Amino acid sequence: MALARISRSSLRRSEGTFKSTLNEGSTRHKFSTPSLANVTGDGNFSYLSSIRKATHTSFFSRGISVAPHYQSPAVERIVEDSDAEREETRYPGLEATRPSEKPRVVVLGTGWAACRFLKGLDTKVYDVVCISPRNHMVFTPLLASTCVGTLEFRSVAEPVSRIQSALASNPNSYFYLATCSGVDTDKHEVYCETVTNDGSPHKPYRFKVAYDKLVIAAGAEPLTFGIKGVKEHAFFLREVNHAQEIRKKLLLNLMLSENPGISEEEKKRLLHCVVIGGGPTGVEFSGELSDFIMSDVRERFSHVKDDIKVTLIEANEILSSFDVGLRQYATNHLTKSGVRLMRGVVKEVHPKKITLNDGTDVPYGLLVWSTGVGPSEFVKSLHLPKSAGGRIGVDEWLRVPSVEDVFALGDCAGFLEQTGRPVLPALAQVAERQGKYLVELFNKIGKQNGGKALSAEDIPLGDPFVYKHLGSMATVGRYKALVDLRQSKDAKGISLAGFLSWLIWRSAYLTRVVSWRNRLYVAVNWATTLVFGRDNSRIG
Amino acid sequence: MALARISRSSLRRSEGTFKSTLNEGSTRHKFSTPSLANVTGDGNFSYLSSIRKATHTSFFSRGISVAPHYQSPAVERIVEDSDAEREETRYPGLEATRPSEKPRVVVLGTGWAACRFLKGLDTKVYDVVCISPRNHMVFTPLLASTCVGTLEFRSVAEPVSRIQSALASNPNSYFYLATCSGVDTDKHEVYCETVTNDGSPHKPYRFKVAYDKLVIAAGAEPLTFGIKGVKEHAFFLREVNHAQEIRKKLLLNLMLSENPGISEEEKKRLLHCVVIGGGPTGVEFSGELSDFIMSDVRERFSHVKDDIKVTLIEANEILSSFDVGLRQYATNHLTKSGVRLMRGVVKEVHPKKITLNDGTDVPYGLLVWSTGVGPSEFVKSLHLPKSAGGRIGVDEWLRVPSVEDVFALGDCAGFLEQTGRPVLPALAQVAERQGKYLVELFNKIGKQNGGKALSAEDIPLGDPFVYKHLGSMATVGRYKALVDLRQSKDAKGISLAGFLSWLIWRSAYLTRVVSWRNRLYVAVNWATTLVFGRDNSRIG
Repeated sequence: MALARISRSSLRRSEGTFKSTLNEGSTRHKFSTPSLANVTGDGNFSYLSSIRKATHTSFFSRGISVAPHYQSPAVERIVEDSDAEREETRYPGLEATRPSEKPRVVVLGTGWAACRFLKGLDTKVYDVVCISPRNHMVFTPLLASTCVGTLEFRSVAEPVSRIQSALASNPNSYFYLATCSGVDTDKHEVYCETVTNDGSPHKPYRFKVAYDKLVIAAGAEPLTFGIKGVKEHAFFLREVNHAQEIRKKLLLNLMLSENPGISEEEKKRLLHCVVIGGGPTGVEFSGELSDFIMSDVRERFSHVKDDIKVTLIEANEILSSFDVGLRQYATNHLTKSGVRLMRGVVKEVHPKKITLNDGTDVPYGLLVWSTGVGPSEFVKSLHLPKSAGGRIGVDEWLRVPSVEDVFALGDCAGFLEQTGRPVLPALAQVAERQGKYLVELFNKIGKQNGGKALSAEDIPLGDPFVYKHLGSMATVGRYKALVDLRQSKDAKGISLAGFLSWLIWRSAYLTRVVSWRNRLYVAVNWATTLVFGRDNSRIG
Repeated sequence: MALARISRSSLRRSEGTFKSTLNEGSTRHKFSTPSLANVTGDGNFSYLSSIRKATHTSFFSRGISVAPHYQSPAVERIVEDSDAEREETRYPGLEATRPSEKPRVVVLGTGWAACRFLKGLDTKVYDVVCISPRNHMVFTPLLASTCVGTLEFRSVAEPVSRIQSALASNPNSYFYLATCSGVDTDKHEVYCETVTNDGSPHKPYRFKVAYDKLVIAAGAEPLTFGIKGVKEHAFFLREVNHAQEIRKKLLLNLMLSENPGISEEEKKRLLHCVVIGGGPTGVEFSGELSDFIMSDVRERFSHVKDDIKVTLIEANEILSSFDVGLRQYATNHLTKSGVRLMRGVVKEVHPKKITLNDGTDVPYGLLVWSTGVGPSEFVKSLHLPKSAGGRIGVDEWLRVPSVEDVFALGDCAGFLEQTGRPVLPALAQVAERQGKYLVELFNKIGKQNGGKALSAEDIPLGDPFVYKHLGSMATVGRYKALVDLRQSKDAKGISLAGFLSWLIWRSAYLTRVVSWRNRLYVAVNWATTLVFGRDNSRIG
């Protein structure tokens, strides 16, 4: 059994190992281990031997990184003010925990990794603060189904306070609706900005939260490859409100195309749904769309039923991670269902058409962009070691080396090159498994009094995280799905396609939906869709 | 049995009756009966003896009224262009029906009256075109419950194409997502503008729809009494997206108030929910809020549970149409549930506080405005006879006198003074009963070949519409409701309050929800709220 220890000495040892292979001498300072600052003055802190005092001059130390992407103009202003007045500024927030208090775990994010971690955390041992601009987890594999009304939006969203009730009810645990803009790993503090509504009279403001342990599970962002017009005109499919917007747009286009006086060309454009990216999300969304067209548009929008079309554009092959037989099955099935599969690379996106690299113009009424994810601006801005692909680099225990008490997991994290392991794919499966692994590690350390900042010396960590792929699933519409149970792309194993796979797909997800409440709703949604068809109210 | 006839001669008769009492001599031209225009040229129309040809010079006749309130700037521009080029402009749209075609009923609106009418229409006899900026009906009595998550939004919305499937499937029946901006009663045409999304590349444009019979059920608008700031800062509670916005705001305020660094005063302000208007909607919303606070905030937002407050401000008495015993019961119950009842008249609404007439400032985080409804800008702009209160004036058969083939019902219509009947209250019950009455009348006339424009001569209309009030219900929270079965405010009759009333309230509404699908969802929502509590995901 491999053992590791959270302790300054062991970290220094592992850092020593990394140092020899890191070719980033010029940014070497970023990986410094925290040093104990002079603990004097400001009585609040002086009795805490292991927590460094926040001296005014060092408040904005190099450890703080600012992620401009997350900032509204108002916040930008606040940051500038603060920069100018850094000597004076003191943020409100949670100060470091006292020895008599439980250690505080700060979790950034409410995705698969964060929520699995939160769910398992022993709140008798830890206080927990979760910070995210979203107060719920999204059951992402079923999100595509909500765009056409097969499932309702609430059925795939789970409030984080139901996943970990301590956030709502424990006196020193909190959920903060905020974005994280920076981390000071030396001071063990994160900096946040409150989230407000458009048109709200509240101005966003910054606050800080001190942590004993920090878990970064802030996720990733859709890749646009710098292609012009994507962010302005395409819809992503990552959040519940993305699905809401897609549904509104789809129904609006269906209704606009029925209006009198519209030209045939404009009608065909409005009713052309284009999906960019042939990964599981793109394929599932195309399948859902073709189901919607075949069973609902035919009946509910019969005046325009022959004009609605779906095109899936992929630069390479669709479902490239799946078995070749399944890929062929999916291609045939989608084509039979009326989805046009097209090879192409997008050059530019305009309001009413996309231009491909070969010069072809493709007019569209609805454009959904699903070409994978990459590191967010927040992750890019962090001065932490990075893995291949720009994610936060972690070791085999999901620790961020060279800083203490910082862990990263899910889509925002990747194994460092030095670990000799590949960066894992950005899958719910990976994130959830990492969350489960890390929370068990935390609970173990915590019970051995290693929860406080810089206090886990000499506690064995146990086995490192090992990912075993359980297989992939994707539905392609009309009660058909693919199930690929191979452990990797080149391994041998069982792969299925068809109705049985679809039953496996539905059963598997139904059992994995987070709560009983949502499990019930998903089942009721599926049943009512079967009996009554999909809902097509256009709300808002 | 009183008989009436839809015919020019009978209308002239009744007009004669009205004329003697109408004191609007100066606008007398508005009430002229249509005269048959010269049917020449433009071959399209020449064979239709009863339809007047649209001569270019008279295209914008005095009959067209424009409702500026409904227009986006882009539309305004189009209208101006059209005005300038009126000689050349020809709108696209549906021309008058040919003799070989079924008569076309045009329905404006998708509320209670319109949907009950649509539901019952005999589509073997009529083609139907429904025009509304909203493609679904809202089950308004349950809307307040969706603001706090007791019910889901979809459970109270019913797509209009499910209420009348001909709209989606019959070749000459349509639903148009559009606002109506004017009616030319002489030409039997309505003028519409398409609805588009913000940021959509589509420009709104105008089109026209010719009708054989016109049913105006376009509803009313919330009354603000010209008080400054209401439209900018208060939420109404009339549409599903209003309820969505209220829920988002409520959850945002709950979460903002947990953030560190917030002052006690600001926290109390954020968590102060103020409801203006003590009618059934205001009372039910207050009751739902106090339920939400007592059962869900306590558990899910326990850090701030003692700071959240509800105040209901009413100028006179709450539930003034209810029996005095029930009013007292509601007052006691609400007060016990923590709702502060306050007498006051609002003078001005600011972003963070309201000022009352007596100078008191009431800070608020959420402000819901529910002080009844009045005529919309569209209704105001129509050159048709008006009832007391500015609604479209109708006779006992819901016909608009002095013009032909135009009917009005629901919140936008009221009995003319000359009928000797009172204007009915703006209730779902009234609207639904009128829809049912009118559609039976239409089906009867249609079967006797009276469906076409100006063709219902000598067909007896039968009994006039008589409204019999079945009673009022309102829930006040915590499994308690009021049921007032008196036929009018001063009549005697049964009135109940308490748990039994609440059971009656729930059963009555459950049976009246439009579709089986939504009936199932409402039941499932109620059951899950009881078992799991309310959902508090903040989406969007």
